[in-house]
Amino acid sequence: MTSPHRATVIELATSRRTTRVFAKTPVTLEDVLYCVKVAVQAPSGANRQPWRFVLVDDSKTKERIRVACEEQEKRHHATVEANLKQWFNSKNITSQKPFLTDAPTLLAVFSNQKMPYATESTWLAIGYIILALEERSLSTLTYTPSYPENVRSMFNAPEEYKLEAILPIGYSADSKPKEPRRVLESSVYRNLWNVEV
Amino acid sequence: MTSPHRATVIELATSRRTTRVFAKTPVTLEDVLYCVKVAVQAPSGANRQPWRFVLVDDSKTKERIRVACEEQEKRHHATVEANLKQWFNSKNITSQKPFLTDAPTLLAVFSNQKMPYATESTWLAIGYIILALEERSLSTLTYTPSYPENVRSMFNAPEEYKLEAILPIGYSADSKPKEPRRVLESSVYRNLWNVEV
Repeated sequence: MTSPHRATVIELATSRRTTRVFAKTPVTLEDVLYCVKVAVQAPSGANRQPWRFVLVDDSKTKERIRVACEEQEKRHHATVEANLKQWFNSKNITSQKPFLTDAPTLLAVFSNQKMPYATESTWLAIGYIILALEERSLSTLTYTPSYPENVRSMFNAPEEYKLEAILPIGYSADSKPKEPRRVLESSVYRNLWNVEV
Repeated sequence: MTSPHRATVIELATSRRTTRVFAKTPVTLEDVLYCVKVAVQAPSGANRQPWRFVLVDDSKTKERIRVACEEQEKRHHATVEANLKQWFNSKNITSQKPFLTDAPTLLAVFSNQKMPYATESTWLAIGYIILALEERSLSTLTYTPSYPENVRSMFNAPEEYKLEAILPIGYSADSKPKEPRRVLESSVYRNLWNVEV
């Protein structure tokens, strides 16, 4: 577990890229639980800890999730706005979501919508998860089902829980490079909008 | 900058606690920009990088922000639901926000609401920022103004940008311990809701 080189946060954040293609190499339960342990340390609105995680490593469950999601994605892709459709095409993103069965483990992330800033807190915790995965040499993508309500009920999750994301988790076999980022100067200002740091 | 012990992500996440009281010790621009550099490496919906950051280190600007926020908080505290009011009372949280002027630097975080999953992506990036701050021995809290619209216009931010949070940044002088967390078993399930890992 101890490594001669421990990465800094900027190294974890910079090296980390979205993975859509996963190796068959299994993922240990310990590694995934490590990331959840990190996540629950995140701050949340009124410390209500609105998140819940369902770790999915059963093949049949993964298959059912994939079928449900792809059905929804077909609807979504048919109605999506032009801008996003263009981006989908440029990235070869279709309604097919093979990573939902190819990744050894899925982590479904829910937020209790009755709690203050539930979505915000839960996505903050997803940020923690992503850096923890990277530290363990694991990869993911933040897949957001278009109609999460249908998938939520598959998990028997209570109605107040919104399915925020499904994170497929595994070792990357994706050859695509990291998506480029804008230069820093166009993202951060000083004291007033558009004023350079 | 190099330290004999580099922290793991779980160490950063666990040691990190919400700070409401800040030391007067100044914060270097380099340290705050480090956290922004980390943030912009986060994934985002269609890689649109919907976030913008305004670093505030001008005393007059901080004072104006504090006055505007406290005015709104008075309205908010008068109308807040019973549950949250009780929590506010138990934590001595009032409409006073001294950390908005006491912290050496504020980082106002905006998201472009015209972009897909703008709020989600931006809070994920805030998760990155918090771990980066902790790595630099800095502290914060995720302050969410009750009526962000009023503060947004103070920054001259375009209308499509929502002010998601203001992060006061500095060295902690807060003696309060970290808020407790629920046991892991009540946050993570396996394959189905309520099934133990």
